[in-house]
Amino acid sequence: MNKEIPYKIYLDETELPNSWLNLRAFMTKKPAPLLNPKTLQPMTQEELSAIFCEELAKQEIDDTTKYIQIPKEVRDFYKMYRPAPLVRAYCLEKALGTPAHIYYKFEGNNTSGSHKLNSAIAQAYYAKEQGLQGVTTETGAGQWGTALSMACSYFGLDCNVYMVKVSYEQKPFRREVMRTYGAKVTPSPSQTTKVGRQILEEFPGTGGSLGCAISEAVEASQTKEGYRYALGSVLNQVLLHQSIIGMETKTALDKYGVKADMIIGCAGGGSNLGGLIAPFMAEQLEGKANYRFIAVEPASCPSLTRGKYAYDFCDTGRVCPLSKMYTLGSGFIPSASHAGGLRYHGMTSTLSELYDQGLMEARSVKQTEVFEAAEYFARVEGILPAPESAHAIKVAMDEAKKCKETGEKKTIVFGLTGTGYFDMYAYEKFHDGKMDDYIPTEEELQKGFDGIPKLQ
Amino acid sequence: MNKEIPYKIYLDETELPNSWLNLRAFMTKKPAPLLNPKTLQPMTQEELSAIFCEELAKQEIDDTTKYIQIPKEVRDFYKMYRPAPLVRAYCLEKALGTPAHIYYKFEGNNTSGSHKLNSAIAQAYYAKEQGLQGVTTETGAGQWGTALSMACSYFGLDCNVYMVKVSYEQKPFRREVMRTYGAKVTPSPSQTTKVGRQILEEFPGTGGSLGCAISEAVEASQTKEGYRYALGSVLNQVLLHQSIIGMETKTALDKYGVKADMIIGCAGGGSNLGGLIAPFMAEQLEGKANYRFIAVEPASCPSLTRGKYAYDFCDTGRVCPLSKMYTLGSGFIPSASHAGGLRYHGMTSTLSELYDQGLMEARSVKQTEVFEAAEYFARVEGILPAPESAHAIKVAMDEAKKCKETGEKKTIVFGLTGTGYFDMYAYEKFHDGKMDDYIPTEEELQKGFDGIPKLQ
Repeated sequence: MNKEIPYKIYLDETELPNSWLNLRAFMTKKPAPLLNPKTLQPMTQEELSAIFCEELAKQEIDDTTKYIQIPKEVRDFYKMYRPAPLVRAYCLEKALGTPAHIYYKFEGNNTSGSHKLNSAIAQAYYAKEQGLQGVTTETGAGQWGTALSMACSYFGLDCNVYMVKVSYEQKPFRREVMRTYGAKVTPSPSQTTKVGRQILEEFPGTGGSLGCAISEAVEASQTKEGYRYALGSVLNQVLLHQSIIGMETKTALDKYGVKADMIIGCAGGGSNLGGLIAPFMAEQLEGKANYRFIAVEPASCPSLTRGKYAYDFCDTGRVCPLSKMYTLGSGFIPSASHAGGLRYHGMTSTLSELYDQGLMEARSVKQTEVFEAAEYFARVEGILPAPESAHAIKVAMDEAKKCKETGEKKTIVFGLTGTGYFDMYAYEKFHDGKMDDYIPTEEELQKGFDGIPKLQ
Repeated sequence: MNKEIPYKIYLDETELPNSWLNLRAFMTKKPAPLLNPKTLQPMTQEELSAIFCEELAKQEIDDTTKYIQIPKEVRDFYKMYRPAPLVRAYCLEKALGTPAHIYYKFEGNNTSGSHKLNSAIAQAYYAKEQGLQGVTTETGAGQWGTALSMACSYFGLDCNVYMVKVSYEQKPFRREVMRTYGAKVTPSPSQTTKVGRQILEEFPGTGGSLGCAISEAVEASQTKEGYRYALGSVLNQVLLHQSIIGMETKTALDKYGVKADMIIGCAGGGSNLGGLIAPFMAEQLEGKANYRFIAVEPASCPSLTRGKYAYDFCDTGRVCPLSKMYTLGSGFIPSASHAGGLRYHGMTSTLSELYDQGLMEARSVKQTEVFEAAEYFARVEGILPAPESAHAIKVAMDEAKKCKETGEKKTIVFGLTGTGYFDMYAYEKFHDGKMDDYIPTEEELQKGFDGIPKLQ
């Protein structure tokens, strides 16, 4: 087990996992089920099948099957950009002068620029299998929309993306990537849906919001024959697909006899972190190992560190099922000065439950320190990180610095979810000193909490 | 030798080449030397050392040493993003229904987004070794400037980039990447140089040109103590460093017992193609193998297919040495409707000489068909290619289609030099049907030829 560890550990294609790991199946106390907002009863597979593909509806409620086989067609697609490298951050360790060993799982080496593709291709596959014509979704800056466009293009499905209008107009690059993959991109709010027309009538000049785009995408999937809705985070099915991140990471570490001490990931809706920690947490839940897990969220949207654990709506429009999660209230919208992603008001139910059980830590960081870490990392490790990913970098660096103080040789693993090539406006703001560190006040948070439905 | 070939062949770090391959050393009839524009005598190492670092000046004129060792520090940097994958294009083969086997060497998995980094890090290393304070360079859209910024940041060198003003203003993203790496980016023409001030006086509202930016960067390197000039293509030293592309490609093919029939690359100044073909051409020159080599250039800037083989200036400002090359004349500027890179008026002397000796073919392609190939490739192979790289894709696809007609099972290898993430304006033009296929007329070419100095 004393093999020299290379800068980048690439697994062979034959080591690509055959199954996804369903973390909920390992939990004794399960995450709470989704509730039908009308009946307040757990959503059935049948009810969910009206929104999602049948197989995905099944995955959404399955909390007993530990491993779910990855279809061959999805695995073949994975082979175009996976296994993703696990990088030993030799240069970062040296620059920090830390005795810690730092590793990061890099998910940015694909055209969507992030881990989102891992679930997009699965969702597109099951839509194709079911004989659907296409899927609808929403996107903010465009990371998820890009991933889904690529996946749909591969399987010859229509992909209708409702893109927040202000992003559509001001950030045309990701829109063009989506068009390259044949997606139909509509600025939201639009005239194509009832909810869009209503909003346009009420607020004629609005630049849109993610909440509104979700509502349009859901409506469009319901009103058009042969379509279903697809979502890039928060859902159980998404965490399931993203478990491939953690499984590859664990295989790579095991191969070199490396035992992680802590695993760190950024968390917006929780898809990346949930996927990254999946096999490690499963091991821990089985009593076979002990790790520290750290979720990193922006101080401007602090669902875990300052939110409430309660049933809440998943969307601003309050049409989707209720989920029990750490939430800031479905009406909470992070300040416009918040540059990156990780803007979601709640945290996926699995991570919420693990956090509530004390199995996971959470930390919030301010955006200036995040961009400082991003720039530092870019210079020493050569990869320009997405602002989201830089949240994890910031805390990984903090932990490595602690090791320098204490002399401890800990092994730190973090998730580098993607690249920042389409986030240069945010970097520009940072370079020009125009970034602020807005943090919501107690009063602002209370306003969000007031919108949480009183069910309990 | 019947191992199953994976989608991506990743060499181990231990298989990273220890030396660069100096193709000129294998040539019996050598490329013509650079000439001093004043004396018309071959440039000496001493003369070149006033422009470039000493070690690079030495490499520039060395046409006898077959292999030149890669310094350990450069190899360590290479390990952050190399070995680059050689991809078996299974999906493309299937989509085309061709019996051909297609491989591409993908150089886009690094933050500079292209192969340019391979030479940038070498040039920065030698500058550091010589105790210089920094380097100056020019950049158009920013690919080379980004690569050099990353390299300088790694070695703690200043990097002053003169960026064509119109790109600086209209394409701020690569500028911000350069700033992330600490480079000083100056829109050109500027008030910081004599030549810049002259041009601004003559043409107050000009958006600049690459020729002008070169002149400013060269002047700045000459007038500031501790600086040298760096260039990203055309030079012998750059081809030398880029030979790592071809060496890794050959090692990967040899490992699986695959023999290429043809090797295809896009060619602007020739750095990528020169590097890709280096070990294959060397083998051929030694009589040990036989390959077809195809250079692909834009029909709007057709130096090989329609140019003259003559001594010409390397820069528009006519301050740099004279090089014998296929050229359209140093005054030739491709139409503004030309979207991608590959805008250089001449071809590096080594490729020019090989072409003149009939050892290499050349083909020109129009930009609409290039973008059609780019989009097709993006959809089936998942990678969004740079417009430059798509020139090679286009011809590789053409050759694969010929194999479909003839039933021949040829092995096609091409260079995928980079990603198109910062080229979405060009893709937008293509999607909106606003791209034209301008080709210079005979009269326009003649105007360029008239500017070639009459030395021979």
